Amino acid sequence: MELKYKVWLEKDGKAVFGDGLEELLEAVDREGSINRASASLHMSYREAWGRIKEAEERLGTSLLHKHAGGEDGGGAELTDVARDLLARYRRFRQDVDEAMNRVFRSNFGSPTE
Amino acid sequence: MELKYKVWLEKDGKAVFGDGLEELLEAVDREGSINRASASLHMSYREAWGRIKEAEERLGTSLLHKHAGGEDGGGAELTDVARDLLARYRRFRQDVDEAMNRVFRSNFGSPTE
Repeated sequence: MELKYKVWLEKDGKAVFGDGLEELLEAVDREGSINRASASLHMSYREAWGRIKEAEERLGTSLLHKHAGGEDGGGAELTDVARDLLARYRRFRQDVDEAMNRVFRSNFGSPTE
Repeated sequence: MELKYKVWLEKDGKAVFGDGLEELLEAVDREGSINRASASLHMSYREAWGRIKEAEERLGTSLLHKHAGGEDGGGAELTDVARDLLARYRRFRQDVDEAMNRVFRSNFGSPTE
């Protein structure tokens, strides 16, 4: 048997952070714009920005600095809050993977294989 | 923020054990029949038995002994394999809850609250 799980964070009963937003913020950080970030994830700009805006509203904080203009229509970079949240979430997800695999092995390590 | 997660076990890419089956097998064990077990979970007999049969097929093992007849149309009890699986799953779920809460607190313990 294999272990499967999904994990995410909620605030006031609504999802605010998960693997999808992690990937999206990492892409914005890497690409320097929502436009390029969304393209790199085969996602529309509208969807990418919608997800980020929704998370910002639910968290009650800004995740991106957007600056207009320039040749490709402006860029975006993570706020300090977003950087902190992303760093915590990454460590959290690594810890989750390690803990879950350990717990799975300790209970289903052999005979039920 | 609050931690949310779902966990289940798969075999050959198909779900074979999770919180729903745990609850159902516990009910059969407690009630002594699929009929009473399904009623106690506000589920139809057809759905309850369908879920158990699907898990049996995917696991390649019997989870219930069914015995026909008697005043209420026969009963059912867990096989040794089902008992072992259920006991492991219960411990596993307790371990998962403990580990997940610990990992969450260690990464999101205070400031992002």
